[in-house]
Amino acid sequence: MNLRGSALLTDLYQLTMLHAYYVHDMNDTAVFELFVRRLPPQRNFLVAAGLEQALQYLEELHFTDDELAWVRDSHLFRSGFADWLKALRFTGDVHAMPEGTVFFGEEPILRITAPLPQAQLVETRLLNLVQYQCMIASKAARSVVSAQGRFLVDFGFRRAHGAEAGLLAARAAYIAGFAGTATVLAAPQFGIPVYGTMAHSFVQAHDDESDAFRRFIAAYGNGATLLIDTYDTEEAAHKVVALGRNLAPHDVHIGAVRLDSGDLGAFARSVRAILDNGGLGETRIFASGNLDEYRIAALLEEGAPIDGFGLGTSLVTSADAPSLDSVYKLQEYAGKPRFKRSTAKATWPSAKQVFRYHDAHGRMHHDVIAPADDPQPGEPLLTHVMTARTRLLAPEPLASIRTRTAKQLDLLPPSLRALAPAHKPFLIEIAPALRALAARMDSALDGHPPRPQQG
Amino acid sequence: MNLRGSALLTDLYQLTMLHAYYVHDMNDTAVFELFVRRLPPQRNFLVAAGLEQALQYLEELHFTDDELAWVRDSHLFRSGFADWLKALRFTGDVHAMPEGTVFFGEEPILRITAPLPQAQLVETRLLNLVQYQCMIASKAARSVVSAQGRFLVDFGFRRAHGAEAGLLAARAAYIAGFAGTATVLAAPQFGIPVYGTMAHSFVQAHDDESDAFRRFIAAYGNGATLLIDTYDTEEAAHKVVALGRNLAPHDVHIGAVRLDSGDLGAFARSVRAILDNGGLGETRIFASGNLDEYRIAALLEEGAPIDGFGLGTSLVTSADAPSLDSVYKLQEYAGKPRFKRSTAKATWPSAKQVFRYHDAHGRMHHDVIAPADDPQPGEPLLTHVMTARTRLLAPEPLASIRTRTAKQLDLLPPSLRALAPAHKPFLIEIAPALRALAARMDSALDGHPPRPQQG
Repeated sequence: MNLRGSALLTDLYQLTMLHAYYVHDMNDTAVFELFVRRLPPQRNFLVAAGLEQALQYLEELHFTDDELAWVRDSHLFRSGFADWLKALRFTGDVHAMPEGTVFFGEEPILRITAPLPQAQLVETRLLNLVQYQCMIASKAARSVVSAQGRFLVDFGFRRAHGAEAGLLAARAAYIAGFAGTATVLAAPQFGIPVYGTMAHSFVQAHDDESDAFRRFIAAYGNGATLLIDTYDTEEAAHKVVALGRNLAPHDVHIGAVRLDSGDLGAFARSVRAILDNGGLGETRIFASGNLDEYRIAALLEEGAPIDGFGLGTSLVTSADAPSLDSVYKLQEYAGKPRFKRSTAKATWPSAKQVFRYHDAHGRMHHDVIAPADDPQPGEPLLTHVMTARTRLLAPEPLASIRTRTAKQLDLLPPSLRALAPAHKPFLIEIAPALRALAARMDSALDGHPPRPQQG
Repeated sequence: MNLRGSALLTDLYQLTMLHAYYVHDMNDTAVFELFVRRLPPQRNFLVAAGLEQALQYLEELHFTDDELAWVRDSHLFRSGFADWLKALRFTGDVHAMPEGTVFFGEEPILRITAPLPQAQLVETRLLNLVQYQCMIASKAARSVVSAQGRFLVDFGFRRAHGAEAGLLAARAAYIAGFAGTATVLAAPQFGIPVYGTMAHSFVQAHDDESDAFRRFIAAYGNGATLLIDTYDTEEAAHKVVALGRNLAPHDVHIGAVRLDSGDLGAFARSVRAILDNGGLGETRIFASGNLDEYRIAALLEEGAPIDGFGLGTSLVTSADAPSLDSVYKLQEYAGKPRFKRSTAKATWPSAKQVFRYHDAHGRMHHDVIAPADDPQPGEPLLTHVMTARTRLLAPEPLASIRTRTAKQLDLLPPSLRALAPAHKPFLIEIAPALRALAARMDSALDGHPPRPQQG
């Protein structure tokens, strides 16, 4: 089975609902919106990512013969259901924020308009694809801001939650401004630059650390990065200096040393001094080992002479906020707005657009969430990207998404760029027309408490 | 490209090291062990899982023509390297703890004995596959203990980190004792039972909630689960009672109602009373919505009449501990023990075995980590499972792994089964022969502080 595109990458309740729609011939147009209800307390903003994978999934969606055989053999459904599924394709419209767009809670980032069964079936995988990349791009963007221009590399594959997470994390981190990743498959798959040094096992496999360094450079050539903390970091730095002296006449230079344990700030200072005194002023210092945006900020704050950072576990698991409160909710069906009133999970009805406003300096000032058919003077963030099995925009190159993200991060108010939770979150206004619609629908449900004032 | 088995699902440094091994003809036998350095503070024990996927990966490992073309075109390596990679297969030995085995920090759960390049290359993907399933099986086992026999279902795919995580989480939770999953693909892929109800959108797509319930049952038949919190939970429970009365003469019974928001304990009590008074004493109550092992324990503690729980985000992201401190370390090369002395990351050298001891009541008492060639009276936990491209044991059915896990959870000391951190962790002893070997190797590195006493 095709792991990435299988139509069975869904919850069983999607199929039981589709079965009911099939039985009762409910095939009118539905509008669903994907949004994050509330930002995690550790995030002042989020970055949209994953749209390209979502569109690929929608383009390719179909049930294979094997999958239909499972549906038939499950004995959960009436006999004609599998044949009906066999013809199912996604033929709807998609509106979305371009990847790299900064967004906030309650703002739809993806809107699906399609016959109800199609729009329902895709919920599970769309959430799965979009929430993970948004989460990682948002986490990575914080490190990018924190690192103030230093070189960042994703080292996380081994601790990512499976292969797809590892690959998509490399993509999301690159979108956010990382220089690249250690994950090789990300190079052929996405064209992302890959970086690699050596592991402790390479040093351990040699009886002598200097031999390990020498052999690595003999194979690698110019610009190699040597890992120097296997036994004694400062002793190893002296070995690097001795090696550098021998190599200089051959025009071979040691690109960098990597520190992976201990007090990285203190080691960076002492190693910098050893390298500088030994004539290796050009050899850079790269640090790794349980790093995240907070540790990077602390190391730079104390003046650690570190030129680049490898981020792993904390990045690819978004360790301080390993999920977003992302949902995909029905907003209209058969031409009528729909909503949900569940305690603490109420939604704003109808198809919506997000309008962004900037201040006199060009900084983001506030957003307005309004009905999609109620134009506002701000910049609309959702764009029509797919209709009737046709893309309205070509797949966007990662370089262009990176540029958008960098610009958007520059336009964030400083209090939101900071690592600490902002005292005042970004202002999201609910347009009066939307409030009025919700109030009308609320009052139709007699005797319920009024909808809490949000936004 | 094949996402699951690609040889490029690895860090670039594995290839740069392999390249150096190729250039310098370093092909002697290496022993690597995979272990978790320290348990997260929120875990008193871990459950081994993911061995089957690890063995499949090792069996299938090879570079495809596309992958070799990338290696050639990368210009990172000498010209003969791609041809050398083309012939690479995994021909080594694997020793492992059977899936479902309870284990602790510092204990090897997987040992690879193979020519150095093979053993090195597989590090990244082995960690990626094994750490995620161990983490989820361990998290799931806590919910199983907490739920005291109630019915548990994995609802997590949408918030899992990608498709592979969602699928492997379903497998790991089932191993730990869950009844099944909502993820459809887990049924054909692993034979795991799948469960499904309905979403709020199904109710919202109807103008009347009772119509939605009636239509769902008309399509689903006997035993359906109805979601009752879309607008007003207690009103919906009364609608279920009225519907149940109409259906009873036709011998159609409503299997369960699902609560997904609000005060689940209070709603469960009021809904139970409404159902019982309405003659639906057999209709069960299923709860979901931000649940984890702590919330389950609290709900059962307050006597909430809940028959089953759906667990999503917290389960599949292991939200309170979203990574394990898992590593894969060189222990021997070319017949010599190897170790690493990096600050706070020192390892015990040589190939090792874990021996388990039980008390007079059969409960787990302590483990001893010893050199693999130094037999001890305890029960050895690592078994020889693969040699020279041949499995020594057939793939184990999930049912048999589930049985092992259940037995092992029963044998845990009560303080470790508890959700709260145990005051006294499980006792892990380091065998004297291993301490002596480490001390000899330490003293060979003159002038270093002595290895801290562990275990």
